[in-house]
Amino acid sequence: MTQTPSATERIEIERACERIVYAYSRALDLGDMSAAADFFAENGSFARPMAPDKVIQGREAIRAALLTRPKTLLTKHLATNVIIDVVSRDEARGLSYLTMISTTLPGDAAPPYVSAGPVYFGEIKDRFVREGGEWKILERRGSVQMKFSGAAAP
Amino acid sequence: MTQTPSATERIEIERACERIVYAYSRALDLGDMSAAADFFAENGSFARPMAPDKVIQGREAIRAALLTRPKTLLTKHLATNVIIDVVSRDEARGLSYLTMISTTLPGDAAPPYVSAGPVYFGEIKDRFVREGGEWKILERRGSVQMKFSGAAAP
Amino acid sequence: MTQTPSATERIEIERACERIVYAYSRALDLGDMSAAADFFAENGSFARPMAPDKVIQGREAIRAALLTRPKTLLTKHLATNVIIDVVSRDEARGLSYLTMISTTLPGDAAPPYVSAGPVYFGEIKDRFVREGGEWKILERRGSVQMKFSGAAAP
Repeated sequence: MTQTPSATERIEIERACERIVYAYSRALDLGDMSAAADFFAENGSFARPMAPDKVIQGREAIRAALLTRPKTLLTKHLATNVIIDVVSRDEARGLSYLTMISTTLPGDAAPPYVSAGPVYFGEIKDRFVREGGEWKILERRGSVQMKFSGAAAP
Repeated sequence: MTQTPSATERIEIERACERIVYAYSRALDLGDMSAAADFFAENGSFARPMAPDKVIQGREAIRAALLTRPKTLLTKHLATNVIIDVVSRDEARGLSYLTMISTTLPGDAAPPYVSAGPVYFGEIKDRFVREGGEWKILERRGSVQMKFSGAAAP
Repeated sequence: MTQTPSATERIEIERACERIVYAYSRALDLGDMSAAADFFAENGSFARPMAPDKVIQGREAIRAALLTRPKTLLTKHLATNVIIDVVSRDEARGLSYLTMISTTLPGDAAPPYVSAGPVYFGEIKDRFVREGGEWKILERRGSVQMKFSGAAAP
């Protein structure tokens, strides 16, 4: 079995990995942290954008970490500028921009909920692996470079 | 005629539907509301992100609703995190994030025009259908979850 | 040699041009201005989003212009809503949205760095050309339509 994907296979791999980037963001924003954890390989590792030096090892440890998120937190994770590099039929790398904003759900209001910011601007480096026919995140490293709260903020 | 698309057809469908998401946003931002309406199927339906419970039925009703937009409104509709699910050769579903900001065009200034916000963070659920060889929006449901005006805003 | 690309070739061209849009943004945000210039064709031309009427002609002139950027500037260029139109096997056009924010790196702080904004909302029109097997930017025209500094800004 060759490791060199055809043009069509290459595009399919790129699309599958892009989709993970978007679907993972969506799981976080739905507050479905266990579904987010399921995007990782069993031996996957993760450093959150806000804690880039703290690597969490293994899907179940990632799940436990994600599940500590307060249930009243509402987030929006915008993933843009997604570039996927296909390494082989079963390996790929990803680079994407993450723009994140959150707020705490009030008990009594209706959407759209007001966020006081900040808007965070960061990036995500991924390694993807195909396991049993399914693409998973083997390694995810986040970082945040900038934040914006509005001109009047300190 | 089989309903199962090949790998290449599947990618072509995904690309065609993504493109509608972007081109529709662009039509709105150019203020070309009639062109925006033309992305809908004749029997398409639409609930605007800011009025998610009010479903507008039929392309011509959608056109009439879109045309009520003030001509002095300038918008930017950023579409990100686009996921397309191919159902068959002639049906697909879409999920995307919408980040929207607008301002009223002043009579006397030049671009870039200042917007006081807010920035709205929402999402769009689409159903697409292929009619006479062309992909159209059969159903579009928008919603807005969050807004941001800056830290100093109330 | 025919100029009509196959379905797979068409998708490959779209992907290659999209990738340039993202990778160019990334080079700017890494402060690697020479790498950014290398995305242009030798006879490429460029009008920056903030100076849409000033066309810079030729890759080396573009490089010189980009290299004037202050080394203490940190930027984030979010590219979204990317639409690529394949013209032939060796020509394509692109339209994308650019959302840009920047800040000046302080001497003493650690990321995330605070930006006071504004966030700029603009668009990019590209012409791409394949030269010696590689896609390059033949023509890039930027413009900015809106800016947002927060509700409290003047």
